[in-house]
Amino acid sequence: MRGALLFIGDELISGRIVNTNAEFAGRVLASFGFLPEEIVTIPDKEEKIVSTLRRLVEEYDFVIASGGLGPTEDDVTTEAVSKAFGLPLRIDEGLLNAILRSQEYQQTMEMAKRMALVPEGAITLAKDSKFVGFYLHYRGKKLFFLPGVPSQFRELLQERVLPELCISQRTSTRSDSMEGVHLKSLLFFDINETDLNSFIKNLKLNLRNNLKIGYYPLMPEVKLIIVGNREDVEELYNEIKGRFFLNIISESEEGLPIVVGQLLKGNSMNLTVAESCSGGLLSALITSVPGSSEYFEQGFVTYSLRSKEKTLGISEKVLREKGVYSHETAQEMAIRAKLLAGTTFALSTTGIAGPAGGTEETPVGTAFIGLATPREVYSVRFQFQGDRETIQRMISYTALDMLRRYITYGKGLSSYRFARDFKERAL
Amino acid sequence: MRGALLFIGDELISGRIVNTNAEFAGRVLASFGFLPEEIVTIPDKEEKIVSTLRRLVEEYDFVIASGGLGPTEDDVTTEAVSKAFGLPLRIDEGLLNAILRSQEYQQTMEMAKRMALVPEGAITLAKDSKFVGFYLHYRGKKLFFLPGVPSQFRELLQERVLPELCISQRTSTRSDSMEGVHLKSLLFFDINETDLNSFIKNLKLNLRNNLKIGYYPLMPEVKLIIVGNREDVEELYNEIKGRFFLNIISESEEGLPIVVGQLLKGNSMNLTVAESCSGGLLSALITSVPGSSEYFEQGFVTYSLRSKEKTLGISEKVLREKGVYSHETAQEMAIRAKLLAGTTFALSTTGIAGPAGGTEETPVGTAFIGLATPREVYSVRFQFQGDRETIQRMISYTALDMLRRYITYGKGLSSYRFARDFKERAL
Repeated sequence: MRGALLFIGDELISGRIVNTNAEFAGRVLASFGFLPEEIVTIPDKEEKIVSTLRRLVEEYDFVIASGGLGPTEDDVTTEAVSKAFGLPLRIDEGLLNAILRSQEYQQTMEMAKRMALVPEGAITLAKDSKFVGFYLHYRGKKLFFLPGVPSQFRELLQERVLPELCISQRTSTRSDSMEGVHLKSLLFFDINETDLNSFIKNLKLNLRNNLKIGYYPLMPEVKLIIVGNREDVEELYNEIKGRFFLNIISESEEGLPIVVGQLLKGNSMNLTVAESCSGGLLSALITSVPGSSEYFEQGFVTYSLRSKEKTLGISEKVLREKGVYSHETAQEMAIRAKLLAGTTFALSTTGIAGPAGGTEETPVGTAFIGLATPREVYSVRFQFQGDRETIQRMISYTALDMLRRYITYGKGLSSYRFARDFKERAL
Repeated sequence: MRGALLFIGDELISGRIVNTNAEFAGRVLASFGFLPEEIVTIPDKEEKIVSTLRRLVEEYDFVIASGGLGPTEDDVTTEAVSKAFGLPLRIDEGLLNAILRSQEYQQTMEMAKRMALVPEGAITLAKDSKFVGFYLHYRGKKLFFLPGVPSQFRELLQERVLPELCISQRTSTRSDSMEGVHLKSLLFFDINETDLNSFIKNLKLNLRNNLKIGYYPLMPEVKLIIVGNREDVEELYNEIKGRFFLNIISESEEGLPIVVGQLLKGNSMNLTVAESCSGGLLSALITSVPGSSEYFEQGFVTYSLRSKEKTLGISEKVLREKGVYSHETAQEMAIRAKLLAGTTFALSTTGIAGPAGGTEETPVGTAFIGLATPREVYSVRFQFQGDRETIQRMISYTALDMLRRYITYGKGLSSYRFARDFKERAL
């Protein structure tokens, strides 16, 4: 199946908005083997939409279009579809009612009616018609029209477009209904794709063959999606959960900063961090979540040696004898931060983000992450790779994940892919 | 003049790489009135490149293509150009020599020869042929082929493509040489575009008419580009510098974190920050710059009330009587942080990043930023707008800019667009 993506919107052409939908769609589709062969971005111009749609339908088996479905004058996609394929428009009553009921859209009746227009033969895509978007089966081609709003685009792409493409690949027959196909997604951290692949490969054959599985990076998290009939999907889902439970962050779009926040809040626990090489990024990730003041007490960005001694009170002996990049320093940082702030937990980071400063013994990317809990202190030595930004990001996310694993499972701190060694002691 | 952008690369289709070049090109071109009418992304497939190039040349006056000019097997753009337009390829000796001399490319002779190929009639674009990229004037159409590497793409787009488009718009005659046009760019922070517009509008007419001026947001910085003949460009450049000197960060691509770092390092000064509402982002921005340990001592992310009292030693009286969102608290935070860390300067932030927590008196987006210097302490009350991420970003960048203005000019702290009021006292 050959496909194309079509993005419609003046704001995408002028660079006022970054087209994150294109990147996301590319990853999701590529992970399932539906790599598009062309991505086209055009302005909200009816004539241009008409000619582009005709060209793409001629050339490809499926087209996923996005944007221009709103209620304003410059939203002309639906009318362009009507003109391109000679299909009259009708008001979809379900969509109209949902739009009128919705708190989100505060539209006039005229605007609501405009948004509820779909071409003849099209079916609406969103569950309970909660937002716009339709599917059209036209001359053997599959045409999807999604809203440009990223959250809506993502939801429909994963939950409607992907299953439909999977079905049609399997059966090669026409499907108008888009029913009977089930989808589950999991968000992972630190997953080893080789392990995951060989695990899936060793499952019993009929389960594997009935399912489509894709995964794509969300940097640094990884999303896994399983598509197929309900029973098989649930079976694989449970198998994967059983084997890779340590790596599963959530079954939604919520990443580590939100998940860790929920764990702390749900258990009435709180957190302090002491950062060296992550330089404030760990604090910034935690406080990017609204309401984080409920569980985040404070951060010590002790970047200089002096500040580690003076603000945190790390002993000069530890720093001199063990070195600033050591289990001992990471542990002391966590212990002292926890003590100073009086919190349930403390995380600490010390290492070399680069590009300069590496040695043979401690190359760029070396990082020690510490975790102080009410009863013990842990530290893990990691060896990360990449540029400064990537290394600082990996350190910060891994620190959050260590806390997640500790609260959820009380274990798993030493089994990271990039972990080198591990120390633990009682407090 | 009607134009299109063409991005070539498997990695752009699969979402492995975010197409930041598309966004950047859109902004730059839009700001000069050269808004493209179509952006196409295709894989590194010769056949597809040939057919797409033919279609775009038919339809548009200019095409800016990017990617596929490297030395490996999958870089097929140059050969596709040759096939699309029936132009034989030749080795450009200047380019070949530059590639062989370059430290960056460690190519075999065969690879270097491949990279140095250009279609007959094309001219190379980069100054001193330091990297690949060529311009082709074909049947009255302007065709640019740029490398996909973002820094190289940006440089050629601004310094070669833009001037060429400006010239041809003015003269409407064929230009093969791309000579005689001059370009200057300035990076601004906190520029009021209405002020800038009316300032330019009031300049003497012939200066204005001879120049093309564009500006586009780099969030939160703003880039201004002036294109025209050397004398006029320099004249306008000096006029703008004279009037808006406070707002000019740099004459390069270097943003606030780098510029502030250079100022501190160049003057052997150092910095501490005490953050509340920016939650670590200010520290993270500073430490995102390699070598920042030379001037960044430490950060106190005192997110809770308790940590402001206990770690920084802000008096309970100030917090209670003046409130946590106040000039007094911001000033105390900066003074105490500076004292504790023993640095030349300290910056502080306190306010409401939202979405919850606002009141009528201090709505979401209220922020007090403090700056302690060796002699005085300043604080400015701001009212920012946007979502949590935008507000935290604006607060952090504005704090950095206050320090920049102070070190460079010793003034200008109260004249920000979003500033509400200002307090200063000697230490």
